[in-house]
Amino acid sequence: MSEKLWGGRFSKTTDEMINEFQASIQFDRRMYREDIAGSIAHAEMLAKVGILSEEDRAAIEKGLRDILAQIEREDFAFSVELEDIHMNIEKRLTDAIGEAGSRLHTARSRNDQVALDTHMYVRHAVVDVLARIRELQHALVESATTNKDVIMPGYTHLQRAQPILFAHHLMAYFGMLMRDFERFQGVYARTDIMPLGAGALAGTTLPIDRAFVAKRLNFERIYTNSLDAVSDRDYILEFLSAASILMVHLSRLSEEIILWCSREFSFVELDDAHCTGSSMMPQKKNPDVSELVRGKTGRVVGHLMAMLTAVKGLPLAYNKDLQEDKEGLFDTIDTVKFSLAVYAQLIRGMKVRADVMRHAVAADFSNATDLADYLVRKGMPFRQAHSVSGQAVALCIERGIWLADLPLADYQKLSALFAEDIYEAIRPETCVAYRNSYGGTSYEQVEMQLAAARDLMAEEARIVSAWEQKQEIL
Amino acid sequence: MSEKLWGGRFSKTTDEMINEFQASIQFDRRMYREDIAGSIAHAEMLAKVGILSEEDRAAIEKGLRDILAQIEREDFAFSVELEDIHMNIEKRLTDAIGEAGSRLHTARSRNDQVALDTHMYVRHAVVDVLARIRELQHALVESATTNKDVIMPGYTHLQRAQPILFAHHLMAYFGMLMRDFERFQGVYARTDIMPLGAGALAGTTLPIDRAFVAKRLNFERIYTNSLDAVSDRDYILEFLSAASILMVHLSRLSEEIILWCSREFSFVELDDAHCTGSSMMPQKKNPDVSELVRGKTGRVVGHLMAMLTAVKGLPLAYNKDLQEDKEGLFDTIDTVKFSLAVYAQLIRGMKVRADVMRHAVAADFSNATDLADYLVRKGMPFRQAHSVSGQAVALCIERGIWLADLPLADYQKLSALFAEDIYEAIRPETCVAYRNSYGGTSYEQVEMQLAAARDLMAEEARIVSAWEQKQEIL
Amino acid sequence: MSEKLWGGRFSKTTDEMINEFQASIQFDRRMYREDIAGSIAHAEMLAKVGILSEEDRAAIEKGLRDILAQIEREDFAFSVELEDIHMNIEKRLTDAIGEAGSRLHTARSRNDQVALDTHMYVRHAVVDVLARIRELQHALVESATTNKDVIMPGYTHLQRAQPILFAHHLMAYFGMLMRDFERFQGVYARTDIMPLGAGALAGTTLPIDRAFVAKRLNFERIYTNSLDAVSDRDYILEFLSAASILMVHLSRLSEEIILWCSREFSFVELDDAHCTGSSMMPQKKNPDVSELVRGKTGRVVGHLMAMLTAVKGLPLAYNKDLQEDKEGLFDTIDTVKFSLAVYAQLIRGMKVRADVMRHAVAADFSNATDLADYLVRKGMPFRQAHSVSGQAVALCIERGIWLADLPLADYQKLSALFAEDIYEAIRPETCVAYRNSYGGTSYEQVEMQLAAARDLMAEEARIVSAWEQKQEIL
Amino acid sequence: MSEKLWGGRFSKTTDEMINEFQASIQFDRRMYREDIAGSIAHAEMLAKVGILSEEDRAAIEKGLRDILAQIEREDFAFSVELEDIHMNIEKRLTDAIGEAGSRLHTARSRNDQVALDTHMYVRHAVVDVLARIRELQHALVESATTNKDVIMPGYTHLQRAQPILFAHHLMAYFGMLMRDFERFQGVYARTDIMPLGAGALAGTTLPIDRAFVAKRLNFERIYTNSLDAVSDRDYILEFLSAASILMVHLSRLSEEIILWCSREFSFVELDDAHCTGSSMMPQKKNPDVSELVRGKTGRVVGHLMAMLTAVKGLPLAYNKDLQEDKEGLFDTIDTVKFSLAVYAQLIRGMKVRADVMRHAVAADFSNATDLADYLVRKGMPFRQAHSVSGQAVALCIERGIWLADLPLADYQKLSALFAEDIYEAIRPETCVAYRNSYGGTSYEQVEMQLAAARDLMAEEARIVSAWEQKQEIL
Repeated sequence: MSEKLWGGRFSKTTDEMINEFQASIQFDRRMYREDIAGSIAHAEMLAKVGILSEEDRAAIEKGLRDILAQIEREDFAFSVELEDIHMNIEKRLTDAIGEAGSRLHTARSRNDQVALDTHMYVRHAVVDVLARIRELQHALVESATTNKDVIMPGYTHLQRAQPILFAHHLMAYFGMLMRDFERFQGVYARTDIMPLGAGALAGTTLPIDRAFVAKRLNFERIYTNSLDAVSDRDYILEFLSAASILMVHLSRLSEEIILWCSREFSFVELDDAHCTGSSMMPQKKNPDVSELVRGKTGRVVGHLMAMLTAVKGLPLAYNKDLQEDKEGLFDTIDTVKFSLAVYAQLIRGMKVRADVMRHAVAADFSNATDLADYLVRKGMPFRQAHSVSGQAVALCIERGIWLADLPLADYQKLSALFAEDIYEAIRPETCVAYRNSYGGTSYEQVEMQLAAARDLMAEEARIVSAWEQKQEIL
Repeated sequence: MSEKLWGGRFSKTTDEMINEFQASIQFDRRMYREDIAGSIAHAEMLAKVGILSEEDRAAIEKGLRDILAQIEREDFAFSVELEDIHMNIEKRLTDAIGEAGSRLHTARSRNDQVALDTHMYVRHAVVDVLARIRELQHALVESATTNKDVIMPGYTHLQRAQPILFAHHLMAYFGMLMRDFERFQGVYARTDIMPLGAGALAGTTLPIDRAFVAKRLNFERIYTNSLDAVSDRDYILEFLSAASILMVHLSRLSEEIILWCSREFSFVELDDAHCTGSSMMPQKKNPDVSELVRGKTGRVVGHLMAMLTAVKGLPLAYNKDLQEDKEGLFDTIDTVKFSLAVYAQLIRGMKVRADVMRHAVAADFSNATDLADYLVRKGMPFRQAHSVSGQAVALCIERGIWLADLPLADYQKLSALFAEDIYEAIRPETCVAYRNSYGGTSYEQVEMQLAAARDLMAEEARIVSAWEQKQEIL
Repeated sequence: MSEKLWGGRFSKTTDEMINEFQASIQFDRRMYREDIAGSIAHAEMLAKVGILSEEDRAAIEKGLRDILAQIEREDFAFSVELEDIHMNIEKRLTDAIGEAGSRLHTARSRNDQVALDTHMYVRHAVVDVLARIRELQHALVESATTNKDVIMPGYTHLQRAQPILFAHHLMAYFGMLMRDFERFQGVYARTDIMPLGAGALAGTTLPIDRAFVAKRLNFERIYTNSLDAVSDRDYILEFLSAASILMVHLSRLSEEIILWCSREFSFVELDDAHCTGSSMMPQKKNPDVSELVRGKTGRVVGHLMAMLTAVKGLPLAYNKDLQEDKEGLFDTIDTVKFSLAVYAQLIRGMKVRADVMRHAVAADFSNATDLADYLVRKGMPFRQAHSVSGQAVALCIERGIWLADLPLADYQKLSALFAEDIYEAIRPETCVAYRNSYGGTSYEQVEMQLAAARDLMAEEARIVSAWEQKQEIL
Repeated sequence: MSEKLWGGRFSKTTDEMINEFQASIQFDRRMYREDIAGSIAHAEMLAKVGILSEEDRAAIEKGLRDILAQIEREDFAFSVELEDIHMNIEKRLTDAIGEAGSRLHTARSRNDQVALDTHMYVRHAVVDVLARIRELQHALVESATTNKDVIMPGYTHLQRAQPILFAHHLMAYFGMLMRDFERFQGVYARTDIMPLGAGALAGTTLPIDRAFVAKRLNFERIYTNSLDAVSDRDYILEFLSAASILMVHLSRLSEEIILWCSREFSFVELDDAHCTGSSMMPQKKNPDVSELVRGKTGRVVGHLMAMLTAVKGLPLAYNKDLQEDKEGLFDTIDTVKFSLAVYAQLIRGMKVRADVMRHAVAADFSNATDLADYLVRKGMPFRQAHSVSGQAVALCIERGIWLADLPLADYQKLSALFAEDIYEAIRPETCVAYRNSYGGTSYEQVEMQLAAARDLMAEEARIVSAWEQKQEIL
């Protein structure tokens, strides 16, 4: 006899190859905790409304907790023939406790059961991601604090533009991560909707209590439409979108760290733990982790594209295409969690070469704007000041010197507004200190950024902690 | 002489071809209102902190308002040579009012200016999208209310599954759009951050007042990091993500309407205005609008992909690659606004063929679950009931009849629990009415959904209205 | 002591987490045959040019063949610590045969070794895909031949357009697969380029003979540039592109089969082996395989996007990001091979319901073009004939009849050109038979298509067979 | 009266908004030459088979040539109401020559007409792309020839790996472009298939001669299946795929040029024509063109994604979604043509700073492999040599010197195999010259590459020229 529970109507068994291809047990087994917690809650509700006897409910709960223990001590043989985690657990339960087990599926379909498990799994993953975003922010703030006086060249178009504080540069990533945190809060809110009770698509004829299940499993909202409940994959698409944007941020940071590790920049040195060597070139110390994270950005973007393509144009309600929602999602969760965690470590282990950066700033024209600003402060219209500054730069290039080396007499030929204080005005430290507009790179502004960042992280910690508690469902 | 304002240092003029390719005036001209409003606010701030005389400020404002009027009456010749909307306006201003115009760019870079304009443009677009989402929800609620007793087959795997209310089916889309509305609220929040004052990348040495500009232009937040301010494209990526998910929803609705318009389904008839004919086949009435919206989903997803790819791996701060942010964004805004608006019309004009749907439900096995549920209600375990129901279906298929036609004697051979009331239990109207669990398809539940939807739309209207007022910046 | 072979310079061991994340052994182990064959050929070449003694070469070959046997009888413990398949095999070899093993890596880097293995693996996969494309074409031709007289409605915009032969419809997919076959031939040609000898990036100082290795491993071409050899991922991108287009074809076929299986169409019945049932709705017979293939199209497109994103903007030569090339590729290979194979089965097992299709054609306006063509044959300009035909359709709709039911008198009121032969002209069989232009749907044309298809498949078989022999490298 | 030619059956005119959104005249007008050439050929064929009188044919041709002249002298007012280029031209023709014009559409549908025009347009675009690929290859070969003795550091992981020739580095891109050329040849072959005569979907009842049209318009093949002919978008997908891979190549080159232009590398200096300055920072010389091309890679990848998504899951035959095929395609054609052309210029104008590169190579450990190879040549197993080399590097790092500075005594403490000739062996010029394996970076090998490249380009020129002649269809 076929073990397929829907096998009644069919005269042939499903072809082996297909079986393997449509089985999901290889990847959905990781939702075993959610499946068991969901079933226990469902059984409690069935008992509460009188569909299940208390005796059966107790047997079901005990049976499920036994299975949980078996899985956690790796003493559970998953069967591909049983297709998915839900059937694997239900079959084992029925084998163990008999008919009571077969009553568990009352008023429930695999469609809403899978939806429930996935919602809980993603919700939990979001909390993990939030915690790790905060952890990386923490590492950035630490490094920014430690290196708060370090000056580096600021770039646009990868051309040196203006001197900035290294701490200011790092804190730009703090800002990105702050928005990532907010975005994932939104993902949480739209994942935290309870689908169970939607049945296959239309609800159930039995007098279930969905609010009870929602409360028991710490859901904030309940799907108000059963068709929507079983066919909604928004929360997965939104998770993948937020993850893609996050990975784009990390890919940008990775690009910079790879540049900074190059011999040409030499701005930082990574801990050996975050590098590898070469089988052929013994001198190499490759920033593999950063390259890997940059490369894995493509993978996450690919998973988003895969899911958008899969859902596009599907009629309601459930279609098998939607089974494609999990592998890419799970891989994205792993990738994002790894990338955030490894970056928190990498930033903490990264040695900042302040001397190299300071030396770099001394040997470029990144103080040319300050030359212009100096003139503006003395009353010249900006566009004109910009032009004079450009002439000074051209003159220096011609002579092979920097702005600091140009004699005052030459400056004064370009504009009578120049005086001896020009040399102080174009010192990198002055350039930095003077950019004291709100959000600017001055020492004072960066201190303020750091203080605000610490406050924000405290608030984030409270959010993460509250949501972590909500994941305790077993 | 070159009109390029950064032309000072260069000995050659930019090649024609390149000029054309990197000019953005063809598409960024649509941000003229934002550019002018931003400049007026910037000038006010410069005057307030004493960088600009009140006289110059007044001349600038008057000059800009003149330009605004010229553009709006289509009396402004945009120049490709001047590259973008910002330079087009600034050049015209300087031509008109002289040196005062050239002071406007003080304490501002094209980098933060472009960022400001784009933030304001996107923020406004989000409000337009929110209003249109609500409009489509309204059309769905109207049609659901009008057709609230219409029964149709519910599908999974495009196989008939269970009878449902047509109103219930439509309201599944209401749920999707509700989440779209929430998501775009998040986009608004993360677009509503003021970048001006970030300068080229590091802030400015001048004593500007960013909070003043933010308040003047109705921004809720200000970027706390200048590098982040000029290189952030999160709000665009998030807009494109939210738009992609929204378009996936509309593509699903489109797929269904295309199916329903087919001769095989014939569930609805569209208004002629939303169809076209064929140049060769006179009988055709093609649901072009739905096909177009379904097709344009690819376009929006493509724009998201384009932008994720463009930003991936870019070091800080501004890189020219980021100029690629606008065309796809603008096209997405147009596409989403069109698609929502046309669908509100299409739903309103769609004739629902209740008779065809009711007839369909009478001639299928979509009441088989109800047969099983009937047995469950009489005490049979679910898995067994499912099996008996399967046998009944098999028997009917063999005889070429439906479940309603199977004699009671035959039923009773399958299970002694069957009685005369089985026929009432499997009538479509009964099947629907009995699915009275929260969120289910019963008449009562759908009434509740509609009531809740009306409340939600009232709240949404308040949000849209408040944000619409915030866009009044000129 | 660390087992990492490049560990010399480093003072810390690589962090566990990173280790696991950058290890590729979980997925690249499937290239064990290619790795072993490549190493045997490399050793032969080293011996030929005198770098390796014949004794060492023989020891290496024997050692490698032992490992091959171990792996194939599943008696080889892969180690994550050794990162990848190459190191796993090399370490085992060195353990088994001592110093001779450590000489194998002479004049070779992991960069060109990985490239070699992947090229051989992909080349082989392409041949498998070609064979399966042909197999599916074969199934299509079989079904088209069996059902060569079956008439069905042809659709545009999912509206019935003109009657066509079912065989003609199937053969449209034959045409798509023909181009897929051609495209994968192109992929083969650009995969069949030998990278070994490129070293890490710049070639080697040792007097190797790359042509010997190429010949030994049946490569047609050799990379002429060593940097290109180690950083080229074109063949993977091109494989993924060709696979995406192929999957788009199968997704279109899937969509049609899902439609045809719906109760509304009922044009075909799938074999039970290609369907599944429902846990809740016993009457369901879901076309899961078609839905799965349609859904997996997204997955393959996602892998293409992932790889394009990963490679975008990478400087030469090798970067760790490129390690991302394999998982998505392998999954694509599996998906494409499965999808083609299962579709060959599905088409063979699909029961075509000729009666339902014929009945459908009798009850629509898909012969309206023939009405117009009738008039054109009698001398009316096309645009006018189209208009008259439209009026006839409108008249029928008004009366609730079809064109075959409209009295001749009414026809003649519309145009004096109508005569009694109009009824024969608009019979579906006539409509089909008359579309006898080259490539049209007439019986004669479809016969010609089938004959040409059989010739083409014979040619394809020759290509596949010749290339299959080239894969015998062990 | 509505001007819509299919307007007969409809009682309402199409809504304005929809009209604008589904009109394609804004972008498909660029296919006017193809449309006119196709119509002239179609008319010739109709005359040849006797459907059209020679008089009418001549009138049609004259009318069409007049329209061609009007369009080319910009004296043709395109109408949005007439939707597309085909209707714009047909309407104008009918207005000009009367009933003969209305006979032109005989035995033709808009479906196969659009397909024909697009095939011809894409075919032509492919030839343009091929010519430009070759042009860029030419520029690379020129620069490689001019700079054939320039040594630079070769990189992996953006870490210096081994010294290479700058010419060798450039020629890696030649290899990529060679494969791009091949791929686009494949695109040409699968675009060069004639669809006209497929009618709306099923062929036509009229005795047309498709082979005549194919020959007249220089098509190599004819679609053998009419459904396939009107719904095939493979050639567009394949164009977009090949374009995406090509752009990925250019994005890699762009990344390198951006790096090389940075102050940290300073390996090259671009011509001013390919750079821009900053509105705020007068010293900036930004490699905008390279950034733009790198950014536009996303755009092309996005268009590919858009089209794959649009076609995915569409049933046969034509669906309106397919109209989405053109805008992204046209934009891709423009982008690819621009990017190739501008890069040919940029490479030609790029000043290579041989001194800076040579200086760089003197101050790194990129000769460490040569140290190891030296030992291997003296008999040490590779793995051991690698380890000794690593120790030498570590020793140098400790002392702050390079390998060239380490005394022989120290070398000999590491291995007795070291002798005085080690210093010659690790000179960059020696390192380069010794990598003389086929495809390696040695002077000799690079000369061979350049010679082979010149031969290949001659062959490519022949192909381009032959295909350019085939595009002369008017």
